[in-house]
Amino acid sequence: MTALVFLDPDYPAGRIADAMTPQLSVLDQGVTRGDGVFESVLYTRSVVRKIDAHLARLRVSADTCDLAIPGEEAWRAAIATAVETFDASTPSEEAVVKLIATRGTEGTAHGTCWVTVSAAPELGRTQRDSGISVILLDRGYDSTVAERSPWLLMGAKTLSYAVNMAALRHAKKNGADDVIFISSDGIVLEGPTSTVLMAHRDGDVKRLITPTLETGILPGTTQGAIFDAAKAAGWVLGYGPLTPENLMDAEAVWLVSSVRLLTPVNSIDGVGVARDAELHAELTAMVDSIG
Amino acid sequence: MTALVFLDPDYPAGRIADAMTPQLSVLDQGVTRGDGVFESVLYTRSVVRKIDAHLARLRVSADTCDLAIPGEEAWRAAIATAVETFDASTPSEEAVVKLIATRGTEGTAHGTCWVTVSAAPELGRTQRDSGISVILLDRGYDSTVAERSPWLLMGAKTLSYAVNMAALRHAKKNGADDVIFISSDGIVLEGPTSTVLMAHRDGDVKRLITPTLETGILPGTTQGAIFDAAKAAGWVLGYGPLTPENLMDAEAVWLVSSVRLLTPVNSIDGVGVARDAELHAELTAMVDSIG
Repeated sequence: MTALVFLDPDYPAGRIADAMTPQLSVLDQGVTRGDGVFESVLYTRSVVRKIDAHLARLRVSADTCDLAIPGEEAWRAAIATAVETFDASTPSEEAVVKLIATRGTEGTAHGTCWVTVSAAPELGRTQRDSGISVILLDRGYDSTVAERSPWLLMGAKTLSYAVNMAALRHAKKNGADDVIFISSDGIVLEGPTSTVLMAHRDGDVKRLITPTLETGILPGTTQGAIFDAAKAAGWVLGYGPLTPENLMDAEAVWLVSSVRLLTPVNSIDGVGVARDAELHAELTAMVDSIG
Repeated sequence: MTALVFLDPDYPAGRIADAMTPQLSVLDQGVTRGDGVFESVLYTRSVVRKIDAHLARLRVSADTCDLAIPGEEAWRAAIATAVETFDASTPSEEAVVKLIATRGTEGTAHGTCWVTVSAAPELGRTQRDSGISVILLDRGYDSTVAERSPWLLMGAKTLSYAVNMAALRHAKKNGADDVIFISSDGIVLEGPTSTVLMAHRDGDVKRLITPTLETGILPGTTQGAIFDAAKAAGWVLGYGPLTPENLMDAEAVWLVSSVRLLTPVNSIDGVGVARDAELHAELTAMVDSIG
């Protein structure tokens, strides 16, 4: 089952509601305009992971969209109520905590904000071991557009994910599991629901590299946490611009996200990518230690 | 008030519901992913205007998104029930009929489809006479991306409108009423919720010109209907590519949409644009005659 808690000034701990019955207005701009922001957070063994990073990113997304959202304490209280409700009914090793804030019904002064907790999809867990095949798809934007055009909301995690979902469907139709978006000028961006990581060995030096945020991609909370842990473990960190050729030349490539965690890439556009079991094990241990 | 009718196989005429109470699941992918399609249709004096064109475009949008939606008869029946419900409670000169189809709750085989009817916003009617100031904003895509990249859903009217809404907010913050999007290679595209039209006099010849659909813009139902009427009235029709300079050199520029109809542009980026009262009156009469 899914636990649902609305943020509501009349309920300091959040207002529990039944996720299986309708709770949202059809006039909410979250649905009529995809106008809102969200976060997907992993919940394992009583820990809501990287919650500070997720709340910080939710705030940045909301600010980018000129969307007023409640303060962190209201979110933390609602999350606590939601995971408690979830735990009471559903023992689950891994769950997804979703935070959603919409602009609310047109003409109203306040948005609609809620938290859901659901069991994590099985597929993501399988893919952490099996790895995935990805295809490269043009995102249509060049890698400098974010700086020029703030109204494109680059770097904000909005509810307008139709293109991300279409890209994933396109991959599946073509026999692949996932997508890495490329800018129109040939620079590696991100997955539709993930951040790209690659590793290089350089003698004894281990390098961990991710695309630069200047390309307009979403700042990955999991990438950020892995980078912190890898730096502490003596890795050298690097930031793109990366090209598809850089990925093909890497010792290993991953897609990382908060729920699926560290997923190794087996192939890109049908061409095998190196996998490095030792590096993968080391990074997986770091991911597992993220609080 | 807003009338609300869900498409529902158990209710051949549609299922009437109360739009003022929650009717939608917070797990619906229409809100969690902006994953769905829509149409906004004008309802005046008992006529749901251009309904054939809107139903046809809804179908194209759904096909582009691999979204299965009910057949036209189900939509027509629900629309009829919705306008009847609306008329019984709310006398209104102009109303907006909204058709929405989402992908439904994750894991379910069927989407969620509904029709709402609400009074039309006053602002659009005022702007038909006063005209509007617009700014040009980069849409980030080049004008050839639609052909290359079907996963970008160009030409589909999806619920993922966060960027369109952000562009309108950006215009208002900068003292303008609306936006004309430009491609990254400098070609005129469309407004966030409208189609661009311009007119030229060439001796006795009147030319009506709109951007080519090859740029990936949405095919405008109102533009289409005006073009049919103008052709019948002896105008010469033309299709871009257009540049901003072409707009500045025109005898008149309009943004057209189903609800706001024909709205003259007074200025672009603060520079006055010609208005031609005679051409405007002629096209307005055509718009008013659209069934």
